[in-house]
Amino acid sequence: MATTSEIKQQLRAQRIETPSWAYGNSGTRFKVFAQPGVPRTVREKIDDAAQVHAFTGVAPSVALHIPWDRVDDYAALAEYAEDAGVRLGAINANVFQDDDYKLGSVTNPDPRVRRKALDHLLECVDIMDATGSRDLKLWFADGTNYPGQDDIRDRQDRLAEALAAVYERLGEGQRMLLEYKLFEPAFYTTDVPDWGTAYAHCLQLGERAQVCVDTGHHAPGTNIEFIVAVLLRAGKLGAFDFNSRFYADDDLMVGAADPFQLFRIMVEVVRGGGLDPAAGVAFMLDQCHNVEPKIPGQIRSVCNVQEATAKALLVDRDALTAAQRSGDVIGANDVLMDAYKTDVRPLLGELRAEMGLDPDPMAAYLRSGYQERIAADRVGGAQAGWGA
Amino acid sequence: MATTSEIKQQLRAQRIETPSWAYGNSGTRFKVFAQPGVPRTVREKIDDAAQVHAFTGVAPSVALHIPWDRVDDYAALAEYAEDAGVRLGAINANVFQDDDYKLGSVTNPDPRVRRKALDHLLECVDIMDATGSRDLKLWFADGTNYPGQDDIRDRQDRLAEALAAVYERLGEGQRMLLEYKLFEPAFYTTDVPDWGTAYAHCLQLGERAQVCVDTGHHAPGTNIEFIVAVLLRAGKLGAFDFNSRFYADDDLMVGAADPFQLFRIMVEVVRGGGLDPAAGVAFMLDQCHNVEPKIPGQIRSVCNVQEATAKALLVDRDALTAAQRSGDVIGANDVLMDAYKTDVRPLLGELRAEMGLDPDPMAAYLRSGYQERIAADRVGGAQAGWGA
Amino acid sequence: MATTSEIKQQLRAQRIETPSWAYGNSGTRFKVFAQPGVPRTVREKIDDAAQVHAFTGVAPSVALHIPWDRVDDYAALAEYAEDAGVRLGAINANVFQDDDYKLGSVTNPDPRVRRKALDHLLECVDIMDATGSRDLKLWFADGTNYPGQDDIRDRQDRLAEALAAVYERLGEGQRMLLEYKLFEPAFYTTDVPDWGTAYAHCLQLGERAQVCVDTGHHAPGTNIEFIVAVLLRAGKLGAFDFNSRFYADDDLMVGAADPFQLFRIMVEVVRGGGLDPAAGVAFMLDQCHNVEPKIPGQIRSVCNVQEATAKALLVDRDALTAAQRSGDVIGANDVLMDAYKTDVRPLLGELRAEMGLDPDPMAAYLRSGYQERIAADRVGGAQAGWGA
Amino acid sequence: MATTSEIKQQLRAQRIETPSWAYGNSGTRFKVFAQPGVPRTVREKIDDAAQVHAFTGVAPSVALHIPWDRVDDYAALAEYAEDAGVRLGAINANVFQDDDYKLGSVTNPDPRVRRKALDHLLECVDIMDATGSRDLKLWFADGTNYPGQDDIRDRQDRLAEALAAVYERLGEGQRMLLEYKLFEPAFYTTDVPDWGTAYAHCLQLGERAQVCVDTGHHAPGTNIEFIVAVLLRAGKLGAFDFNSRFYADDDLMVGAADPFQLFRIMVEVVRGGGLDPAAGVAFMLDQCHNVEPKIPGQIRSVCNVQEATAKALLVDRDALTAAQRSGDVIGANDVLMDAYKTDVRPLLGELRAEMGLDPDPMAAYLRSGYQERIAADRVGGAQAGWGA
Repeated sequence: MATTSEIKQQLRAQRIETPSWAYGNSGTRFKVFAQPGVPRTVREKIDDAAQVHAFTGVAPSVALHIPWDRVDDYAALAEYAEDAGVRLGAINANVFQDDDYKLGSVTNPDPRVRRKALDHLLECVDIMDATGSRDLKLWFADGTNYPGQDDIRDRQDRLAEALAAVYERLGEGQRMLLEYKLFEPAFYTTDVPDWGTAYAHCLQLGERAQVCVDTGHHAPGTNIEFIVAVLLRAGKLGAFDFNSRFYADDDLMVGAADPFQLFRIMVEVVRGGGLDPAAGVAFMLDQCHNVEPKIPGQIRSVCNVQEATAKALLVDRDALTAAQRSGDVIGANDVLMDAYKTDVRPLLGELRAEMGLDPDPMAAYLRSGYQERIAADRVGGAQAGWGA
Repeated sequence: MATTSEIKQQLRAQRIETPSWAYGNSGTRFKVFAQPGVPRTVREKIDDAAQVHAFTGVAPSVALHIPWDRVDDYAALAEYAEDAGVRLGAINANVFQDDDYKLGSVTNPDPRVRRKALDHLLECVDIMDATGSRDLKLWFADGTNYPGQDDIRDRQDRLAEALAAVYERLGEGQRMLLEYKLFEPAFYTTDVPDWGTAYAHCLQLGERAQVCVDTGHHAPGTNIEFIVAVLLRAGKLGAFDFNSRFYADDDLMVGAADPFQLFRIMVEVVRGGGLDPAAGVAFMLDQCHNVEPKIPGQIRSVCNVQEATAKALLVDRDALTAAQRSGDVIGANDVLMDAYKTDVRPLLGELRAEMGLDPDPMAAYLRSGYQERIAADRVGGAQAGWGA
Repeated sequence: MATTSEIKQQLRAQRIETPSWAYGNSGTRFKVFAQPGVPRTVREKIDDAAQVHAFTGVAPSVALHIPWDRVDDYAALAEYAEDAGVRLGAINANVFQDDDYKLGSVTNPDPRVRRKALDHLLECVDIMDATGSRDLKLWFADGTNYPGQDDIRDRQDRLAEALAAVYERLGEGQRMLLEYKLFEPAFYTTDVPDWGTAYAHCLQLGERAQVCVDTGHHAPGTNIEFIVAVLLRAGKLGAFDFNSRFYADDDLMVGAADPFQLFRIMVEVVRGGGLDPAAGVAFMLDQCHNVEPKIPGQIRSVCNVQEATAKALLVDRDALTAAQRSGDVIGANDVLMDAYKTDVRPLLGELRAEMGLDPDPMAAYLRSGYQERIAADRVGGAQAGWGA
Repeated sequence: MATTSEIKQQLRAQRIETPSWAYGNSGTRFKVFAQPGVPRTVREKIDDAAQVHAFTGVAPSVALHIPWDRVDDYAALAEYAEDAGVRLGAINANVFQDDDYKLGSVTNPDPRVRRKALDHLLECVDIMDATGSRDLKLWFADGTNYPGQDDIRDRQDRLAEALAAVYERLGEGQRMLLEYKLFEPAFYTTDVPDWGTAYAHCLQLGERAQVCVDTGHHAPGTNIEFIVAVLLRAGKLGAFDFNSRFYADDDLMVGAADPFQLFRIMVEVVRGGGLDPAAGVAFMLDQCHNVEPKIPGQIRSVCNVQEATAKALLVDRDALTAAQRSGDVIGANDVLMDAYKTDVRPLLGELRAEMGLDPDPMAAYLRSGYQERIAADRVGGAQAGWGA
């Protein structure tokens, strides 16, 4: 069993990336509710992300979404981020918000549209070159709404072709993260609906293609930690997009809906060596704060991932293995539950104090006056959002 | 077993209401794709609805959504519709698209917001008085996203209070239809999530409060036709909002995802006497045509409901009952499947010819040139949509 | 906020009933694995239930299942239980394990079978008279496997008729608990599939008919605590059948699959006054220990319910209400999570010590030697089980 | 578009294998209802399978389940089958019904149990040598019920080791079919829960390892035809286990719950070349007839697969492709629906007449007197069943 100091060291080394779009307005197809103080520019998003890092100490990078975060000079943006205390992280390609993409992007039956989508993906790699980002995250909204609408297999061929072209373009030290999702916005077929499809494509592409697990993108009843364990075993787990859900892709704060599931996921991450920075597993948030304030929403989420990680690290591995090997069902379960039931907030408070941070990041942020300041200052202009 | 002529008579008497919002643009939170020829005004929506009726002969009314379809003079609008060949149907209240409603409408913790929402509902009854509409359809987006966000029970109390006030206001011959929905846009609790909750409130209110079954609003695995049978038995089935789904509330064309389920629903409608106009069951469509053209989408949907109804009417009731009573499981199932497997398109073609219509409404519409005309004419202005 | 001593008092007063069948062998359709030491008789089951009470102090009664627990002299059985330190609790009627019930019991198309089933239910009330049990728990496996197999509505009529006859027969102080279940063993329709159906029948019957919520009997995505809140508000929550599930009706140890859900359920119980003994809400376990030992499985389950209850009692109600009323989404959620994240095992350990019990019931039981004793002694004879 | 005669030729060439266990008693954990005339021996099961073939003409083989169908002389059994008019088909290994397998078979933490399970699998290959069977079908009940109960990754390693040993043992022309299943009988993890896991293992093993798709083994909302398309594209679709479901693994008659889904699956089979005998896709039934008679249940199922196949062959491929390529969403859907809505029973009746069969297999079987004969003759002895 790890000592408290070893546990703290691992927690201190964990990196959780926040997404630029979490700081903008979001909503459902029914309504996007505006919130005061929401950023109008990429730089204001970076400022907000820097706050999350300032109070938690473990969120040192922010992911960009292109074209939402398109700027003229990415090097300057990277410098701006650096000055703010964070780095630019993964580049997220967006090939779902142009009228051309109504029937798909890289899988569209129309070759012209496919070419346009591919060009956007390649542009994203250009941006990575400029920002120094390691990861290109690919999520495709592609799919169909009606049986017969398009040919499932042809679309797989088109997908494979586009992925190969992008993979080919990747530079030294760059990776492609392929994300899967059960459904939405497509309602009949989705071209990358499950981990199996993502895995098969990544295997075909090569070792720099890895699977991204978004915790909200599965069918009801799916055992996500099993997928995590299997992907780690296969060396194909590239990243997490963390969030939580009760129903579909609710994109709630991670750990809000099923904290025990988040714990079990982190247990498999630890078990499979995924917490080791050398494993290259990126821990990213991908959330919408439709009704709650954005920065507090991110702070709470970062803390939730930390708490789950801390509990996972508390599992008495030797006792667990002994119970498992001897077929002691309740005993083995008890070892796991013992870690889960532990209140790790004191431990995390200590760690933060040691890192020179307030033990309670949420309270400290709320006291800081930043929220009131941006609400007062960020008046006028167009608030950032998904632009749907 | 009904004769062909009796079946045709029942099919001829069936009324399927189309929704004004199906003619506008719609989409998901990721993107609303614009389509050419989409209406800019309520009157253009009515024109499109009139097309659906002109070619199908069984869609003589169009539902309005307030405030999307707000006009100064509802009597004039009713007259306009009449001239176009259709009637104004149910009034749909919208209390989810104002920033005030972020935490709920009639269940909002803030009494001011509750009052505002109630006023809107009462205004809708005023509109019904002006349009001569019988039905007020109430769907509440109200709910919460996070455990603890609000008190479940307090919200039920607030809901009951608002419903009572609206019920009280209903005039002679007016009804309230209460719709339930599992989730979306709220992701933790929804204040009217299932038929049981809707039923309990309607029971409390009185006989003019009835349940509206939206076929896309259930948990996975829910047996919808069972609910239909139970509500009909209790005299509480007021209406259907038809659409179809593979996953969540996909709002696809009814009958597109599971035509056998639609048939089973219509079997229970017929069994329970719900096809009799005296039963007061309103058959309404509630759909989104995100990727397919709007008017063809509505025509196909109306035809799908008709086909399912025709098949349901073909069920040999005597043979079915005999097999059921004798415990002949496969025999009873075969009686049902025999009706389902029948291709009823020739029968419906005949019926339409007898009604002076083209046997194939879709082909006739596509040949009519209407679609090209609106695409050419409806240029400029703001296309109708959800306004989210 | 309740003081620790008030919380302890409520925890001390809570009663959790264990089911006689949890001590026998159980399994799936694929295999029932035998375990050493499993009871051969009702009295041995009572002995085991007495152990659970002895170590937890809050499980003073055991539910019976008829015919599995049929004996000649129920008064003598009640006395036996009393001597062992427990009481006989709810009587569970079983109308699903006779070849006659293949197509249903009280809803069977054959009146002879319906009569037989009703007679069994009435016999169960006779047994209640003898055992002094308050509750008759009714779960019906009735349903159909194929569309058309039987008439949904006729079956509702037959069900209503049988329930009325049983209700009529209930004596002073006796109640009927009607349990619902989504599916299994029937796969197309189930005659009481959801809380709405159970509620509607109970309402029809009268105030001594109450709904029993089995936590494993819902469709995926169902918000169980919402149902709890609504039933408590309506005065119709009679009992819980606790267990947990990942997929269908897995009947795992309560709290094992989603401890946060169990907490949220208990929060609603506390909120709605359901913890007050006067409310009459019975807390019962209904589980299968297919792969884990039975008595430890029951002890762990009782403790899990206690822990969830303790956490629910720790919720700072005033702070919660204040945050809710002011629309502070994250603040309100935080109040709830603060209680959930608290490790209540020390508190429960204290409480047990005050009650003269070992602070760790599981460890104490395992040390007691009882398990080894029954494994050695209970040799020969037919082990108890479901008899499927 | 295929001509009627081409379609008939393909339908005539299709082979649907029935499972020996479908003729025995089956049920749920709640009850196995006995039926009159159920086989007592493997030979009687073969007799019943021969009836299904005699009346349908497309079910010429019967799958065996070991140990349920263990005999001393498999060569003699093969000869017996031949004389009855059928062949012995796939060998199904059973490593879930021994008390030793409580915590798993090839993934059991105990090496002794793993060895025992592997020996059983190897014995099944011996049996294949004797019966001349091509396919070894492997479904593992292995999994865990509680988080922590065993190590997910260790179990994958053990599984891989066992599969490799069996693969190694396969003879010339023999294949291994690996089946996946979401859950049941394990409720927390299942060691082969989805197509991705099965695919990954098969890929590792080599080309004679193929995936078996059981149509009832998926999470709610899973698009099965997508999996079929993807597996065919990868050359890894080995077989189907057909059945249908409303909820979990209901094992109802294929086509009974969602005939449109079955059609869509067959559309992808045809699209991907899977109907060509050279593709090696085995069409097998895997069902339980809990409440309906067994032989009629199998006849209806075979006919349902045939009807779905006929409809799939009726799809106008050229029109479909043209509509798909031009982005005509409703047009493409209509081409598909046109085939689905066609009543193919007359076509199949013709085909059967040409094959010298009665056009209506079910009616012909019921008239044949076989059912009455076996009910009268098969008295005494132990009826076949799962032996759970």
